[in-house]
Amino acid sequence: MPWRKMINDWRLWINPQATARPSFAIKIMIMRAYHLEDTGAVKKLILQQHPIQEPGPTEVLVRMHAVSLNRRDTYILNGVYPLPSVPGVIPVSDGAGEVVAVGEAVQRFTIGDHVAGSYFARWVDGPFSRELGRYQLGCTLPGMLTEYALLEEESLVHVPPHLSWEEAATLPCAGLTAWSALTGGGPVTPGQTVLTIGTGGVALFALQFAKMLGAKVIAITSCPEKAARLIELGADDVINRHTIPNWPPAVRALTNGQGIDHIIETGGADTIEQSLQVAALNANVALVSVLGIQKKMIEIDPIILAGNLVTMRRLFVGHRTGLEDMIRAIAVHLLHPVIDRVFPFEEAAQAYEYFATGRLMGKVVIKI
Amino acid sequence: MPWRKMINDWRLWINPQATARPSFAIKIMIMRAYHLEDTGAVKKLILQQHPIQEPGPTEVLVRMHAVSLNRRDTYILNGVYPLPSVPGVIPVSDGAGEVVAVGEAVQRFTIGDHVAGSYFARWVDGPFSRELGRYQLGCTLPGMLTEYALLEEESLVHVPPHLSWEEAATLPCAGLTAWSALTGGGPVTPGQTVLTIGTGGVALFALQFAKMLGAKVIAITSCPEKAARLIELGADDVINRHTIPNWPPAVRALTNGQGIDHIIETGGADTIEQSLQVAALNANVALVSVLGIQKKMIEIDPIILAGNLVTMRRLFVGHRTGLEDMIRAIAVHLLHPVIDRVFPFEEAAQAYEYFATGRLMGKVVIKI
Amino acid sequence: MPWRKMINDWRLWINPQATARPSFAIKIMIMRAYHLEDTGAVKKLILQQHPIQEPGPTEVLVRMHAVSLNRRDTYILNGVYPLPSVPGVIPVSDGAGEVVAVGEAVQRFTIGDHVAGSYFARWVDGPFSRELGRYQLGCTLPGMLTEYALLEEESLVHVPPHLSWEEAATLPCAGLTAWSALTGGGPVTPGQTVLTIGTGGVALFALQFAKMLGAKVIAITSCPEKAARLIELGADDVINRHTIPNWPPAVRALTNGQGIDHIIETGGADTIEQSLQVAALNANVALVSVLGIQKKMIEIDPIILAGNLVTMRRLFVGHRTGLEDMIRAIAVHLLHPVIDRVFPFEEAAQAYEYFATGRLMGKVVIKI
Amino acid sequence: MPWRKMINDWRLWINPQATARPSFAIKIMIMRAYHLEDTGAVKKLILQQHPIQEPGPTEVLVRMHAVSLNRRDTYILNGVYPLPSVPGVIPVSDGAGEVVAVGEAVQRFTIGDHVAGSYFARWVDGPFSRELGRYQLGCTLPGMLTEYALLEEESLVHVPPHLSWEEAATLPCAGLTAWSALTGGGPVTPGQTVLTIGTGGVALFALQFAKMLGAKVIAITSCPEKAARLIELGADDVINRHTIPNWPPAVRALTNGQGIDHIIETGGADTIEQSLQVAALNANVALVSVLGIQKKMIEIDPIILAGNLVTMRRLFVGHRTGLEDMIRAIAVHLLHPVIDRVFPFEEAAQAYEYFATGRLMGKVVIKI
Repeated sequence: MPWRKMINDWRLWINPQATARPSFAIKIMIMRAYHLEDTGAVKKLILQQHPIQEPGPTEVLVRMHAVSLNRRDTYILNGVYPLPSVPGVIPVSDGAGEVVAVGEAVQRFTIGDHVAGSYFARWVDGPFSRELGRYQLGCTLPGMLTEYALLEEESLVHVPPHLSWEEAATLPCAGLTAWSALTGGGPVTPGQTVLTIGTGGVALFALQFAKMLGAKVIAITSCPEKAARLIELGADDVINRHTIPNWPPAVRALTNGQGIDHIIETGGADTIEQSLQVAALNANVALVSVLGIQKKMIEIDPIILAGNLVTMRRLFVGHRTGLEDMIRAIAVHLLHPVIDRVFPFEEAAQAYEYFATGRLMGKVVIKI
Repeated sequence: MPWRKMINDWRLWINPQATARPSFAIKIMIMRAYHLEDTGAVKKLILQQHPIQEPGPTEVLVRMHAVSLNRRDTYILNGVYPLPSVPGVIPVSDGAGEVVAVGEAVQRFTIGDHVAGSYFARWVDGPFSRELGRYQLGCTLPGMLTEYALLEEESLVHVPPHLSWEEAATLPCAGLTAWSALTGGGPVTPGQTVLTIGTGGVALFALQFAKMLGAKVIAITSCPEKAARLIELGADDVINRHTIPNWPPAVRALTNGQGIDHIIETGGADTIEQSLQVAALNANVALVSVLGIQKKMIEIDPIILAGNLVTMRRLFVGHRTGLEDMIRAIAVHLLHPVIDRVFPFEEAAQAYEYFATGRLMGKVVIKI
Repeated sequence: MPWRKMINDWRLWINPQATARPSFAIKIMIMRAYHLEDTGAVKKLILQQHPIQEPGPTEVLVRMHAVSLNRRDTYILNGVYPLPSVPGVIPVSDGAGEVVAVGEAVQRFTIGDHVAGSYFARWVDGPFSRELGRYQLGCTLPGMLTEYALLEEESLVHVPPHLSWEEAATLPCAGLTAWSALTGGGPVTPGQTVLTIGTGGVALFALQFAKMLGAKVIAITSCPEKAARLIELGADDVINRHTIPNWPPAVRALTNGQGIDHIIETGGADTIEQSLQVAALNANVALVSVLGIQKKMIEIDPIILAGNLVTMRRLFVGHRTGLEDMIRAIAVHLLHPVIDRVFPFEEAAQAYEYFATGRLMGKVVIKI
Repeated sequence: MPWRKMINDWRLWINPQATARPSFAIKIMIMRAYHLEDTGAVKKLILQQHPIQEPGPTEVLVRMHAVSLNRRDTYILNGVYPLPSVPGVIPVSDGAGEVVAVGEAVQRFTIGDHVAGSYFARWVDGPFSRELGRYQLGCTLPGMLTEYALLEEESLVHVPPHLSWEEAATLPCAGLTAWSALTGGGPVTPGQTVLTIGTGGVALFALQFAKMLGAKVIAITSCPEKAARLIELGADDVINRHTIPNWPPAVRALTNGQGIDHIIETGGADTIEQSLQVAALNANVALVSVLGIQKKMIEIDPIILAGNLVTMRRLFVGHRTGLEDMIRAIAVHLLHPVIDRVFPFEEAAQAYEYFATGRLMGKVVIKI
């Protein structure tokens, strides 16, 4: 195939380091991976053994070190995720590991690189499309809950050196969702206000990124001990919705009546009515909860919508360029993601179950 | 007051034509104006006589030639507009006329200029603010249903020479609302699709402007004879919702299943559910109906919202710079607004009543 | 390779039409292609014979019908293009043809589709990067001057049915450059003014797209017979710079002294000083000439730059999403590109020579 | 004048606090102000006495406490500013003071408020226009170097309580220029790089604001003692161009070869060539020096411009909404501007002379 050869020669010539790449040899080795044999229960997560495969020309073989769970992983487990997963798929979208082999045409990675996957494996940049939406790690494509993952080069990003494997494994889905919410719509200006709801992964990343952007953050939680941690992470004010169930007036009071400029709506149908009540004039509301699962209709009072000239924007994680931008910001700021709890590889089922209890402070990680 | 003098001298020096401005002399003349003595009925519109007043330093006296009605004028008449009007106010925000006198500090207008008012009299540009929102012609400030209107220079714009007075009077509120809907959010790219609903002023301007922008327009109407006129105005497709009450699948079919990129939502709570059903991926929905009046809650299916990554944006008419941009576009394209019917000044009450019937094809004008 | 199989099964299941794809069989056939054996002269363009190759999993085999030339193709021929081309490369980035075979993982194309290539074969969307910049059809990747081209799926787009093969072959480079210039920076509002310089491919596409966007276009040319054609294509005004070498005051006069809002700077160092003299306040200047070749320094008068608050933006063709958006616009508007002259496949060298004379009205095409 | 009365009543009714406004009474008092009797020398700055004037309906009388100098003030003094100043004008655009009286129609200020002026007295928001550009404090309108300034309400903003008068006086021109440079073009993403040149007011504000936005800042200076202060203010790296005259390679090395994303070009024709050499791919260059004064042509190497897809944007201070956004950010972050030196009111001439030496670290203030 002379054309391919030609391309490859050119590549080496443009990027001379590429010649330094050792020819790899994956020994006949056995790896373990979880597979989702059926949906509906954690016992359907079956640990199986495979031979390790050599990467194709554009593939990268990654020795996984940790993964983290997102709500979508539980939806996939329970068979209620809008996009049906492939039978027997290796689950989980988020994970980090070390490159151990690369295909001959791989350009952006070399052996030893620390990497994480991009949720939408083919969405590099630009607007979302249905075509791009079909390629999801841990759903329609093999995921990360495995000792060795074989991934297309285009679905990987480098992770910053100051993060542990557990931390690096938390970035893709929750982190990028928060990043897209804060950077993809109307810009956050230093001094503006941001509202976060709860202490799940997206909310905590949103808090941390909003502080990076120079915003003032008001965080809603339902638990006093979490309040202290939110303040520690940078929240300017925390409101306990357990003690103040009608929290919108309290939020508005904290903003001198002006309301919130950027609302990171992670609560969905449960909180959107209250969220809209705290919207400042010209506010941006980023809808980031997994709305498609909830059966409840969203009810919006037209007077509130009309009065505040709100822009509501639905977004869905984000693209690889956004992930790379976010990771650069994390690297420059030496930011550390918040981890709630780490489980060993053998206790993946327990990790899912713990995650499902829902009262978390940060991410749930499975170490591999 | 030597400083003011100094400023004025400088002004003349920068703009030598200003010296050509004749010193004006408003004779002791009597004018007629309608006043809204009370709310709730057209009989509260009382025609009164006043002496004509001389403009203050930054004011412009306009001999009005025509006004047009908007839904907000009927809400003001009926006392249900969110911002209470001044007792006895001269109603109506939209009108056009000829400058007959200018204050000594006026820069942008000279005697003889053809002008129209800007709905928000002080909103020159930038984001909306509550402060700016309080200054509305025909509500908190004197309006246009008068033989002579005395207006601050900053609340006026020039109107294009190719328009009749009746046409020029239709531009400010409905035209600018449509213009803001199409140009103020995600940009309309040539070849994208736009949906308009009905044949009111905003919908027809939106149709005309969308064609200027190179978009494909699908228009919804409930009346076959209006369909022909919509096609004539440039609509690529028209759907009669009287014969096809479940119109969303029909709209989607016309777009090869892709859906609509820009939805000009003039129907409010009545149509928003259907509008969202035709949203393309990454669609923009501009909410422009006077939502604040409607009591009905807006119900949104979270699955539809989640699936299409829709951005919903509420807007409220627009600023003077937008109005000037729109007018430049109208001038370059020699566009003519659509007028449903013209009433004489003495039949203002009938014009309001006719407007309230609601089955219009364009704007209702009162000639003065 | 069970994982790949799994993916493929899923793909078929999501997109049932995919099952209808006939298993193809490329017969042992011989095709002809031009190769650039060396740089510096058209005689280095050598027509060779190859066996046709089967597409790999993500590749598409295209029966080429026409290509068009761009200035960069002559730079590559002469060995002065900033990115060195692969020795023996098949030249030319722009071309259109019919899909005759697809790899097993190809999703967006089926046999019989009419397609064109995307200049930057891997730039799907988002900001340009050096990595993406390295993959250029007809330079570092095999190009279009061939009877059969084997291309990655991601580097192809569909072309509209109303275009001839010759017309479809003109779109990628010049068309997308013009499209990016008009849609990628400050938006063009209907009624604004656009300046085009000359009658090359980019300038003519810019004229046609600017009219789609509702702008007023002033075109500069050096030839009276071209002026008539520019008017025919929609130019509102044409200035002959042969008769009016100091054309900036003439342009300014045509805009009532306001100047031009969007300048499509295709002249480079030769015209940029004059272009800046016609800039309106807050003007956008898109720099689209192949500046890297020109040795002449660009001299800018700081007073002109300071006085008009100009934004100058350098761009480089564009991404595939932009190309798809442009093609949708062309399809909706039934726009026909302007072709200067068509050469047969055997006269590729003459086409290059004719192109190099530079006094063209539209694109130079080679029919295959 | 019953209409005005009507408006006023309504205003009070909407905003009940307005009723609390004390009727003011400016005693027959004498104030001092500097006037620029002629241009060309600091001795033309003449201190004169006036009676204090009562504010007109929309005016605010401010007891000035401090002003700060900008380069434009020296250009005005020397008669080389592009816009001719009014003979005898009170100079200086930037100043802060306390409201001591307000006109009857004033809404946004009450007695006792701490305020500063907005450089372009009538530019509230939106794009710049020539009309708006003519109204400049301390040039065509009376400025701030006075004990009492009488200003239109629309030209004032509130200043944050944590600032001294001297600090508050530094904000309008230099601060807003830096703010507009960082927030008005392509957005600064956390983790991106910003370059500042020198230690003048704009450069230091740009450094401080860039840190607020989460950027990494590289600062160029020519003096080792200033380097320490730049680091203290947040600079991540400082390069001494006295010891490294060819600083672009050093800057590039600090960014791992990537170059700078946002260049705040305060050096004009002297530094722009070097600035462009450090531009990252897709970089934004904000041109903020007073280019119009410099006679030297700007020379740009087309290869550099072409290779990096740079966007160069000329800006000019900014509008009042930008100033208010900036001030909110300063208030939330409790930022303190950098003051080089403070002069007493009587030594205004010395302040001008000191400022002209040009080797400053922050702003030069005159206390009143």
